[in-house]
Amino acid sequence: MGLYEKFTRIANQREQFQISGLNPFGTCIDEIYSATEGRIGDQKIVLAGTNNYLGLTFNPEAITSGQKALEVQGTGTTGSRMANGSYGSHLALERELEAFFDRPTAIVFSTGYTANLGIISTLADPNRVVLIDEDCHASIYDACVLGGAQIIRFRHNDAHDLEKRMLRLGEQAKETIIIVEGIYSMLGDVAPLVEIAEIKRRLGGYLLVDEAHSFGVMGATGRGLAQDLGVEKDVDILLGTFSKSLASIGGFAVGSEAMEVMRYSSRPYIFTASPSPSSIASVRTSLKIIAQQPELREKLWDNANRLYQGLAKLGYEQGPRISPVVPVMIGSKEDGLRFWRDLITKGVYVNLVLPPAAPAGITLLRCSVNAAHSDQQIDTIIQAFAELKSQNGVVFNQA
Amino acid sequence: MGLYEKFTRIANQREQFQISGLNPFGTCIDEIYSATEGRIGDQKIVLAGTNNYLGLTFNPEAITSGQKALEVQGTGTTGSRMANGSYGSHLALERELEAFFDRPTAIVFSTGYTANLGIISTLADPNRVVLIDEDCHASIYDACVLGGAQIIRFRHNDAHDLEKRMLRLGEQAKETIIIVEGIYSMLGDVAPLVEIAEIKRRLGGYLLVDEAHSFGVMGATGRGLAQDLGVEKDVDILLGTFSKSLASIGGFAVGSEAMEVMRYSSRPYIFTASPSPSSIASVRTSLKIIAQQPELREKLWDNANRLYQGLAKLGYEQGPRISPVVPVMIGSKEDGLRFWRDLITKGVYVNLVLPPAAPAGITLLRCSVNAAHSDQQIDTIIQAFAELKSQNGVVFNQA
Repeated sequence: MGLYEKFTRIANQREQFQISGLNPFGTCIDEIYSATEGRIGDQKIVLAGTNNYLGLTFNPEAITSGQKALEVQGTGTTGSRMANGSYGSHLALERELEAFFDRPTAIVFSTGYTANLGIISTLADPNRVVLIDEDCHASIYDACVLGGAQIIRFRHNDAHDLEKRMLRLGEQAKETIIIVEGIYSMLGDVAPLVEIAEIKRRLGGYLLVDEAHSFGVMGATGRGLAQDLGVEKDVDILLGTFSKSLASIGGFAVGSEAMEVMRYSSRPYIFTASPSPSSIASVRTSLKIIAQQPELREKLWDNANRLYQGLAKLGYEQGPRISPVVPVMIGSKEDGLRFWRDLITKGVYVNLVLPPAAPAGITLLRCSVNAAHSDQQIDTIIQAFAELKSQNGVVFNQA
Repeated sequence: MGLYEKFTRIANQREQFQISGLNPFGTCIDEIYSATEGRIGDQKIVLAGTNNYLGLTFNPEAITSGQKALEVQGTGTTGSRMANGSYGSHLALERELEAFFDRPTAIVFSTGYTANLGIISTLADPNRVVLIDEDCHASIYDACVLGGAQIIRFRHNDAHDLEKRMLRLGEQAKETIIIVEGIYSMLGDVAPLVEIAEIKRRLGGYLLVDEAHSFGVMGATGRGLAQDLGVEKDVDILLGTFSKSLASIGGFAVGSEAMEVMRYSSRPYIFTASPSPSSIASVRTSLKIIAQQPELREKLWDNANRLYQGLAKLGYEQGPRISPVVPVMIGSKEDGLRFWRDLITKGVYVNLVLPPAAPAGITLLRCSVNAAHSDQQIDTIIQAFAELKSQNGVVFNQA
C-alpha cells in the first residue's frame, strides 16, 4: 500500500465533485466584502454559511485594536504560553473571561479545537469513562481518543439514555465525565441541560459543556446555554471558541481554581505557539462588545426567526427549533450538491454537509444567520430557496 | 478521585516554583519592545529564549500587511478551510509555499501542532508502524497516539539504531513511516538525514521531516535541513510552522500531488477554524523576506556562533553543535531554577527546561538567538552567564 492508498475512494469521490464544477469542500471565497457579503468567482454572494454569529468580523473597533496590537506587540509571540508566549494581553484576556463568566480560572488556547483537545485529552485518561452525546464535535471525540478514555456515546439529546448508561456504571458513575454541547453545529438544536444537570447532581460525575456555537448567542449576558437554562453551577468546565461569535481565532476553558493545573499538564497547551497579539486584541474588543451590546443578540435571533419562518412557509424540512444555525434537509447527496451549486448561482453561499459530517445519515444545506444580516439579505436567502423549490419541486428530505 | 486529583503532585511542584518567586512556566512578558527586548515586571530584558529566528516579529512590512488584511478581510474567517474559511489569500499562500519548496502541494493549517496532528494522525493508522526519533516533539507523539499507529522509537539521532529496527520489521519496513526533525528544539542538534535517507532508499518506507526549527534557518534558500544536506527528494512530506522563522502563527505541510487528499481526510484540518487573514498576510510577507534576504540567515548564524563561542570560553557545557538553539546544561533542577531567575535580574530571559521536556533527564537553560540580536546584545547574554559563573563557581551539568 502507498502512503495515500487508503484514501483512494474518498479522493475519487471528492474529485468528481471538483470536476463537475465548484468544489463544496474547498470553495474559495475570492473576496470578502463584509460580515455578510463576498465573491466566489464572478458571483457576488450573501454569506449564509459561516459561524460569525454576531457579525463582528468587520467591527471597526475590533479591527483597530488588532492593528494596534500588530504595531505595538508584533506579528506573533513565536512561543508557547508556557515559555515566552504569555504577554500581558494574553493574561488580561484570561482575567476578562473570568469576569465575564464569573469563574475563578480561564485558560486561553490557540484554536477552539486545541482548547477541547487540551482540556479533554488531559482529563480523559484510560482510568476515566467519558459519556458523550453521539453528535459531539470531532474535536471532542479526538480528545477522548488521544486521552485514551473509555468512550460511551449516548443518543443525541436523550437525557434518559444518558441516565440509563450512568446507572449501568454503578459506583463508577461518580467519576465519569459527561460532555455535551450548547447549540449543536449542524442541526441548531440544544442539549437538554436541565435534565442532564439533574442526572449529574443525582448520580455524580463531572459536566463539561462546549458552548462553541452558543457563547455570545444565548443567555441573559451571552454566556451560553448553561446561563440561559440557569444551570451554570452544575457545569464544571465550560469550553468555547474565539472563531465564532468573537470573530477571531482561538479557544478557551473556564472552570474552578483547580483547573489552573491544566497549564502544567495539557500537552496541546504546552506545545502550541500562543495566539498572536493581534487575535488577542480583537477578541478582547469583541468580548467587550458582547457585554455592552445585547441588541446584537436580539438582532441575531430576529434574523434566525425570519429565515426559519420563511423556509417553513416554503415547506422545507428544517431543524427541530429556531436557531442561528438553520439546516435544510435534502433527500440525497446528489440533490444536495446540485442545490448547493444552484444557490451560489443565485448569490447565496451555504454549507453543504454530507454524512458522516451530518448526523443520522442525512444530507443538509446548513444555513446560518448573523446579527449583521439585513432583513433584505435574509429575504434574498429565502427567495433563492423559493426559486430552488419552483425549479425542483418539493425537495423534502426523503430519508 | 476528583477531576484534578491526579495532577496534585505536579500542581504542588509548580506551586513551589511560583511561591519562591517568578514562575518559569508561566512568565508574563509584560511588555514587548522589539524582536529582542521586553519587560518582565520592572526588569528590562534581552529576549534570549524565543523561536523568532529571523527576528521578523516587528518587521514593518509584515506588520503593515497584517494590518491591511485586518481592514480588507476582517478579524477572522469564522470557518474551517473545508467550509467558508478558505479565502483567496489562504490559497495564494499555499501556491507560494509550493513555489518556495518546489513541491506540487502545500496545505496550510492553523497552528504548527495542528499541522503535525493533521497530517500524521491521518496517515498513522493502526495498520501502520511509525518509527520516530525518541526526541521528537510532543505534537508528533500525540499525532501517532491519536492515529492509533504502532510507535517504535529509535535512539536520538542514531541512524544505525533506526536501521536495526527497520531490519527487524522485515517486509513491513517498506510501509513504515519514519519521522524526524530538522533542528531539534532543545539541544539544537540536527537529524542525520543523509544516513536516514539512505536507509529509506534501501529498506523502503516513507520519510516525514518536521523542519519547524530549521525552515528559514538552514539550506541555500532557507528550505531547511533536507535542502542543506541535499536530500529533499527523499523526503515525502516536509512539515513546518509559521510561529518560528515566519514570526506569526500557523503550520503547513508540503508534499506530492497525492497529499491533496488530506484535505478531505484530516480531522484536525477539517474541524479547526482557518488562520486569520492577518496571520496569513504577515506570513506571506515574511516568506518573501526569507527568499529575498539571505543575509538574515547569515546574521543569525553569526549570532549563534558568537554566543556559542562566548559560553564555551566560560566553560559552560553546551549542545553538540553551533546552532540558533543554544542549550546550557545545568546540574540540578534547583540550580536551573535559581540560575534562570538570576539571569532575569541580570536582564536576560532564557527558557528553563526540566525533564521530561528536556531530553535525557537533564535540566537546561535553553538560549536562542535571532537575526535581530546586535553583537552587543549577544555580549550582554554572555556577560550575564559570566556573572552567574563567578557567583556560583563552575555550573557544569553533573549528570
